Amino acid sequence: METDIEIAQASTMMPIEKIAEKLGIMENKLEHFGKYKAKVITTAEAIKSKEKGKLILVTAINPTPAGEGKTTTSVGLGDALQKIGKKAALALREPSLGPVFGLKGGAAGGGYAQVVPMEDLNLHFTGDIHAIGAANNLVAAMVDNHIYQGNSLRIDPRRVTWRRAIDMNDRQLRSLISGIGAHANGMPREDGFDITVASEIMAVLCLSNSIGEMKQKLRNCIVGYTFDNDPVSIGDLKAEGAVAALLKDALKPNLVQTLEHTPVFIHGGPFANIAHGCNSLLATKTALAHADYVVTEAGFGADLGAEKFLDIKCRMGGLEPNAVVIVTTVRALKMHGGAAKSDLNEENIEALEKGIPNLLKHVENIQTVFGQNAVVAINTFPKDTEQELKLLKDACFKKNILVIQSDVWAKGSEGGIALAEEVVKVCDQPSQLSFAYDLNDTIEEKIEKIVQKVYGGSGTEWTSKARKTADKLTALGYGNLPVCMAKTQYSLSDQATKIGRPKDFEVNIRELSISAGAGFIVVLTGNIMRMPGLPEKPAAEQIDITEEGKITGLF
Amino acid sequence: METDIEIAQASTMMPIEKIAEKLGIMENKLEHFGKYKAKVITTAEAIKSKEKGKLILVTAINPTPAGEGKTTTSVGLGDALQKIGKKAALALREPSLGPVFGLKGGAAGGGYAQVVPMEDLNLHFTGDIHAIGAANNLVAAMVDNHIYQGNSLRIDPRRVTWRRAIDMNDRQLRSLISGIGAHANGMPREDGFDITVASEIMAVLCLSNSIGEMKQKLRNCIVGYTFDNDPVSIGDLKAEGAVAALLKDALKPNLVQTLEHTPVFIHGGPFANIAHGCNSLLATKTALAHADYVVTEAGFGADLGAEKFLDIKCRMGGLEPNAVVIVTTVRALKMHGGAAKSDLNEENIEALEKGIPNLLKHVENIQTVFGQNAVVAINTFPKDTEQELKLLKDACFKKNILVIQSDVWAKGSEGGIALAEEVVKVCDQPSQLSFAYDLNDTIEEKIEKIVQKVYGGSGTEWTSKARKTADKLTALGYGNLPVCMAKTQYSLSDQATKIGRPKDFEVNIRELSISAGAGFIVVLTGNIMRMPGLPEKPAAEQIDITEEGKITGLF
Repeated sequence: METDIEIAQASTMMPIEKIAEKLGIMENKLEHFGKYKAKVITTAEAIKSKEKGKLILVTAINPTPAGEGKTTTSVGLGDALQKIGKKAALALREPSLGPVFGLKGGAAGGGYAQVVPMEDLNLHFTGDIHAIGAANNLVAAMVDNHIYQGNSLRIDPRRVTWRRAIDMNDRQLRSLISGIGAHANGMPREDGFDITVASEIMAVLCLSNSIGEMKQKLRNCIVGYTFDNDPVSIGDLKAEGAVAALLKDALKPNLVQTLEHTPVFIHGGPFANIAHGCNSLLATKTALAHADYVVTEAGFGADLGAEKFLDIKCRMGGLEPNAVVIVTTVRALKMHGGAAKSDLNEENIEALEKGIPNLLKHVENIQTVFGQNAVVAINTFPKDTEQELKLLKDACFKKNILVIQSDVWAKGSEGGIALAEEVVKVCDQPSQLSFAYDLNDTIEEKIEKIVQKVYGGSGTEWTSKARKTADKLTALGYGNLPVCMAKTQYSLSDQATKIGRPKDFEVNIRELSISAGAGFIVVLTGNIMRMPGLPEKPAAEQIDITEEGKITGLF
Repeated sequence: METDIEIAQASTMMPIEKIAEKLGIMENKLEHFGKYKAKVITTAEAIKSKEKGKLILVTAINPTPAGEGKTTTSVGLGDALQKIGKKAALALREPSLGPVFGLKGGAAGGGYAQVVPMEDLNLHFTGDIHAIGAANNLVAAMVDNHIYQGNSLRIDPRRVTWRRAIDMNDRQLRSLISGIGAHANGMPREDGFDITVASEIMAVLCLSNSIGEMKQKLRNCIVGYTFDNDPVSIGDLKAEGAVAALLKDALKPNLVQTLEHTPVFIHGGPFANIAHGCNSLLATKTALAHADYVVTEAGFGADLGAEKFLDIKCRMGGLEPNAVVIVTTVRALKMHGGAAKSDLNEENIEALEKGIPNLLKHVENIQTVFGQNAVVAINTFPKDTEQELKLLKDACFKKNILVIQSDVWAKGSEGGIALAEEVVKVCDQPSQLSFAYDLNDTIEEKIEKIVQKVYGGSGTEWTSKARKTADKLTALGYGNLPVCMAKTQYSLSDQATKIGRPKDFEVNIRELSISAGAGFIVVLTGNIMRMPGLPEKPAAEQIDITEEGKITGLF
């Protein structure tokens, strides 16, 4: 069997200006990065002035080790929409470099539903994430330099909240003491690095419609607190201009293509736990201004990804989807029903039956909490049995849920035509976006509503620290911001082991933190990893490059 | 008066394919980065097969706070060569991001002798330095991951020599304890960051003719030592393939242009102290394959920059210059003669007379030690008096040294025509490159020869630690590598305050370190800063960007 990179490298790409042409984007609006990548020059005005395409959100059940194929389904759906004659585009997230060298390998779909050039996407691409890292670290250097040079803002070195960033899986940098060894080396303090995509700068970039708006958001980012516990911002350091200058090109959406030459905007990739986990607003809007159907996706399962896409990104950006596709697999639902990963190739009706409520809860949320038109896409695998597929479809039929099989990994667009045709129909149905909570709700009410309505929990349990922070944030004037839930992606609850559809659980609210620039309150329900590590056998050991520059071992 | 960035932004650039055309580089050999930057696809074979142009090295006296204008003179000379009808190109270093936000501002020449697009050059350019940082940090993450995952190579955490890298002036990261806080956070150890251009990866990239050669050099890089004090290499970690994959595009030379549309290869920029301080071998050779006259420069003064250019880069790469230009100013020589910076606008014959021997020693070195044809370029300033200029020129005439005034900062190519004409004549004179030392000399002999012949010192004084390291490196088989001197750039000696032409001094050899991948032994003669800090008023506070994306405050 061919690997993803072999399929990708065997494909013939079209020059990127030909891809842009499909969307009516003229060559003078392109900044080429080689022959097959370009940044698109776009402005808030240019976007507003055009008619809007239909927006299709692809989300999923809670992820399992079996894999759901959300990106693969998104790519295949985009290709299938193009195949049936629609002017289609995708708007997806940029992969981070760190995981490429760890366990995961590349992230650009799979099989015959991939985005290319695959190697470039997974290595530096157009440099956006490096630019975001540099911007993040300029802020950090300016914080510590301010303290070193006399500290007129009276920043408490014990209360610096702005961490450094690096685009690498490197556990060694999670926690450190910096500024040691000599007076000239700064001020000794506890410090640490997050992976770059976890930086608030990434979230800011993804939620900004223009350079001016980005600068305003940057100015508001809190870097720490004074000895009197008052917040200190990037604006206080006079750093927002230089930081925005570093992000000049990173703010421009990137255009690439699928194996079947469907235009793909790949731009922005904030963490899906401590941030909102969607591609950039500017890329989504640029795609909507130029295509009739735009497929986008959100991180993790629908409880986290779709909730934040709708409650944060759509609310802030004035977007509203026309259809929501919920990706599931028979295999993953069997795991939600208790099957072991090693047994997934065997039929297991009982496990599937027990796992299906996970899917149903997500569909119910999309329909009733958010008022959206939902389609379930079953990403089929060779070992799925007729019995299993029938059971799954019947369960959906019983609840009047639209359900379609798709097989884009093996067949490309051909495997997604039925799904595309259904999605087109659904896009013409009326829908009315409602939110899980109101911005005027108190912080506590917002979280309570998400837990009860979206997660199906019975309520929340707060640490006294979290309560205190909620009070402080409200007093500081941040009470009307949306909340950004950081919880395990593996369960509707806050415990990874509660698979399927858990009930009667409380969600533990451990602590809150403020992303005042991005404009949301992060709600930490457990230990959230902001810096992954490499595994025992890093993927990096297999990656190589030939004398001719061909990369191998990326998967 | 217009600032550099204002002059640069007011200029009209030519599309980069037109610049490439001047050199006979076809568009299918270009990878565009926007309209005005491109990477040039080149191979060792393609370079070898073409006839060679003339190579002109631009170097300088020991730098002073008055500034010498070495890059400005290089750019102006390139423009003037083009102006007088020669097929000319430049091969220069890439600026690092860190200093842009500190004191120095941009680095791409000045006035009417600049490389453009100036903002791009000084911000991320084509991403090479970010790629080098990622490559460096992948090695670091793999070292610590290896220790964490069982440490089968028995790497001693106290003997890890591979530091992390970031392209930022950030003193806080010079020295730190990483891996703390929990078992899952790695192994606590002393650690630290260098600015990215100080990474050995940068030196490796700059000295590699091909991907294969780069992989071989990477494999040899030493990351630390075992509990038995045996070296551990990148090859031992099986990391060279992934590291080389990260450098796939960074290895390709970048093409830009001057204000007067002379082609400029800007590629590679290793530190001029702990590394060899010249642009990449591949860019220099690509320029030589396509242009008749190629102007390149070396870091700091001729004692450091030109010595390493000749003894390391030319020796490794099989290059030989046809002319060496030594840049000086009346102002800087007055400082070498004891004048204060605040008094430089006043005529000071006595100080100038006392400072001139600094210049003469560098010229003597170029001529007698290295066997090269030298031209002194006086980079003129408005306040230089006739008397001063006459004195300086007469001092050169007396020694039969060619000396030419140039004024490219204010006049562009027009101000460099006389220099260009002289350089063209000199390029036709025969010369025979000799080296300051032989590779078969012992480490001690090599250093002794540089100190006595190039610096004009009486000898060396060694710490016992340095002696011991020399013995160890010889035992490990590194005795026949060239040496890379790391000493203050401000003096011919190893003491910054010994300006002018010091005599009867000994150079203190504090310690040696091995860059086994790049292929040289670094000789540390003092405390060499590998991570700068930001000043009290960082330049970053002035940098800004308008809503239209125009950058201001870069200088």
